[in-house]
Amino acid sequence: MTGFVSFVSSGPGDPELLTLAAVKRLQKADAVLFDDLSSGPILEFARAGADLVGVGKRAGRASPKQDHVSRLLVEYASTGAHVVRLKSGDAGIFGRLEEETTALRTAGIKFEIIPGVTTASAMAAAAGIPLTRRLTARRVQFLTGADVTGDLPQGLNWAALADPEATTVVYMGKRTAPILAAQLQAHGLAATTPVMVGQNVSRPDQTLVRGVLADLAAMVADSDARPALILIGPLAQTD
Amino acid sequence: MTGFVSFVSSGPGDPELLTLAAVKRLQKADAVLFDDLSSGPILEFARAGADLVGVGKRAGRASPKQDHVSRLLVEYASTGAHVVRLKSGDAGIFGRLEEETTALRTAGIKFEIIPGVTTASAMAAAAGIPLTRRLTARRVQFLTGADVTGDLPQGLNWAALADPEATTVVYMGKRTAPILAAQLQAHGLAATTPVMVGQNVSRPDQTLVRGVLADLAAMVADSDARPALILIGPLAQTD
Repeated sequence: MTGFVSFVSSGPGDPELLTLAAVKRLQKADAVLFDDLSSGPILEFARAGADLVGVGKRAGRASPKQDHVSRLLVEYASTGAHVVRLKSGDAGIFGRLEEETTALRTAGIKFEIIPGVTTASAMAAAAGIPLTRRLTARRVQFLTGADVTGDLPQGLNWAALADPEATTVVYMGKRTAPILAAQLQAHGLAATTPVMVGQNVSRPDQTLVRGVLADLAAMVADSDARPALILIGPLAQTD
Repeated sequence: MTGFVSFVSSGPGDPELLTLAAVKRLQKADAVLFDDLSSGPILEFARAGADLVGVGKRAGRASPKQDHVSRLLVEYASTGAHVVRLKSGDAGIFGRLEEETTALRTAGIKFEIIPGVTTASAMAAAAGIPLTRRLTARRVQFLTGADVTGDLPQGLNWAALADPEATTVVYMGKRTAPILAAQLQAHGLAATTPVMVGQNVSRPDQTLVRGVLADLAAMVADSDARPALILIGPLAQTD
């Protein structure tokens, strides 16, 4: 008797940004494995009696090893349970999804992936701007600011990132923002390039702060302890 | 008496991928302006009695001018109506959103933007893959394959696009796929780079076809008349 795992994208935080598909999966789950304590309002959609299991990998906190999460997923599904693995934003974007799908494939457990609203889309929407614009922002790119060691990934494509005609959104990039800003400028991106720092995007305590690339390090230093999303490019200026 | 416009992202096509926020906006709309006749199942969420107004800008069909859509939006909202402007995918990604928000700002009409699931996320989810991967796909980028003239945009950043360690998703890129594939290879991207062509992603008649960059032109030529999304990068190979 094998169970089934639904990887469910929970969106940026506002429960209203769950998809109908996500809500249905939560409502029939036997167990929900989630990362983030702030998922509270989203977990309220879970079926009464479902096991709610925190596997806390939130940045900056002590985290169980990734293989522990994969093992838990396999264990729950092996009891025949319908397991929801909740992933913030869109599960496919910096969600470390593949480690977990590989474990399930190895164990012969079937799964599905429910896509969701990535936090960059929610931040742009909250700011009243698009992520792309004809002629001046024809490419949008998402980057992680922290690899497994917490540093900026090695060997980044600076020609791609220091492009004045792209919108660049950096996930989990708060700690490395000073290095990123310096490198982007060293590779030719203007100090006056607009930037926006978003915290708790789509939640009641959302903050969006606008500035320019030269001030990004200071903007991040002035922000509070919450994780941040950083948007860089001409559209950050529009209001 | 001024109305209000909700720009509502309708996601990739499956009504289950609407957000709760999108459904609520549709349910209270006085008028819904939509682009695409295939939005049928999504329009069923609209309030009975709402005006459903097709402004058909679907690629490859005769389209009203963008300024006509903006004028219609302003006209509807000026009657005091709550107008939903439905945009496929995420409204902020290649949705020509800014032309319409600018018209509303000029007319002094308030609006909100409801973010949604972009089609790239839905395509990856349907294929069982993420859009990013530690070490080998640390950057994901979205590009439009067709500018206003229908051609590939001029002056693209080929160093960014021909990057073997990125996932690149091309929206509306079917017609220009042969040129794009040739240019990517001319700029150093390997002919063996995995690619995936998706049509009607998330809909009952979805098709996903895998191949390699050298075959992209033939894959697109073999596809039927429906629009396609093209995913390029190492993750396209995973199953």
